[in-house]
Amino acid sequence: MAEPISLLDKFARFTDQWSPKVIAEMNDVQFKLARLEGPFVWHQHDHTDEAFFVVKGVLRILLRDGEVAIPEGSLYVVPKGVEHCPVADSECLVMIIEPRGVVNTGDAGGSLTAPNDIWI
Amino acid sequence: MAEPISLLDKFARFTDQWSPKVIAEMNDVQFKLARLEGPFVWHQHDHTDEAFFVVKGVLRILLRDGEVAIPEGSLYVVPKGVEHCPVADSECLVMIIEPRGVVNTGDAGGSLTAPNDIWI
Repeated sequence: MAEPISLLDKFARFTDQWSPKVIAEMNDVQFKLARLEGPFVWHQHDHTDEAFFVVKGVLRILLRDGEVAIPEGSLYVVPKGVEHCPVADSECLVMIIEPRGVVNTGDAGGSLTAPNDIWI
Repeated sequence: MAEPISLLDKFARFTDQWSPKVIAEMNDVQFKLARLEGPFVWHQHDHTDEAFFVVKGVLRILLRDGEVAIPEGSLYVVPKGVEHCPVADSECLVMIIEPRGVVNTGDAGGSLTAPNDIWI
């Protein structure tokens, strides 16, 4: 029998930013925790939507037609194929919900590309 | 451009219990909010896992080999085919994450079966 998974307990176990850690799976969907700070890279995911739930702080997501500011306790879904660039003015803690195998930088690649499927 | 979805703002818009409301979709996966209080019914979902994230209060889930108490800010995934019975000793607020089309009472049916795919 599995134990409940406390998000804050899991966050306490890592400090690296922009490097999502898997905490659970529901079918082929993963729940990943990430610490975000500063600007990320513009990218898109051609084959999947991507959901962000903000656990602490505020996550801004720049879009080509504007931006959204996602406060603590709020959810936002970036539709597949939509270019976006996450930005956190100070560190924020987010839970990302998306299918197994999605790479954080999508089509963009580059130095912020994190190893995938890292469990914590 | 969609707006961020505040879970607490959405919860403020309904009071009925055991009647999940959809607030967002990520591909074919739905995010549903529900107010739970008292005992539910024993049931299982034969074709899917079911994830519970507790927003407020404590959700207990009885399982045939024990029970888990899921506190606020914690996540729990009931694997597909596993019999379970949610119980909330006082009202708790949960976000359920599962594929579109899943009926709340699974294989059990009965009077607590809620209409599906109700958006709020």
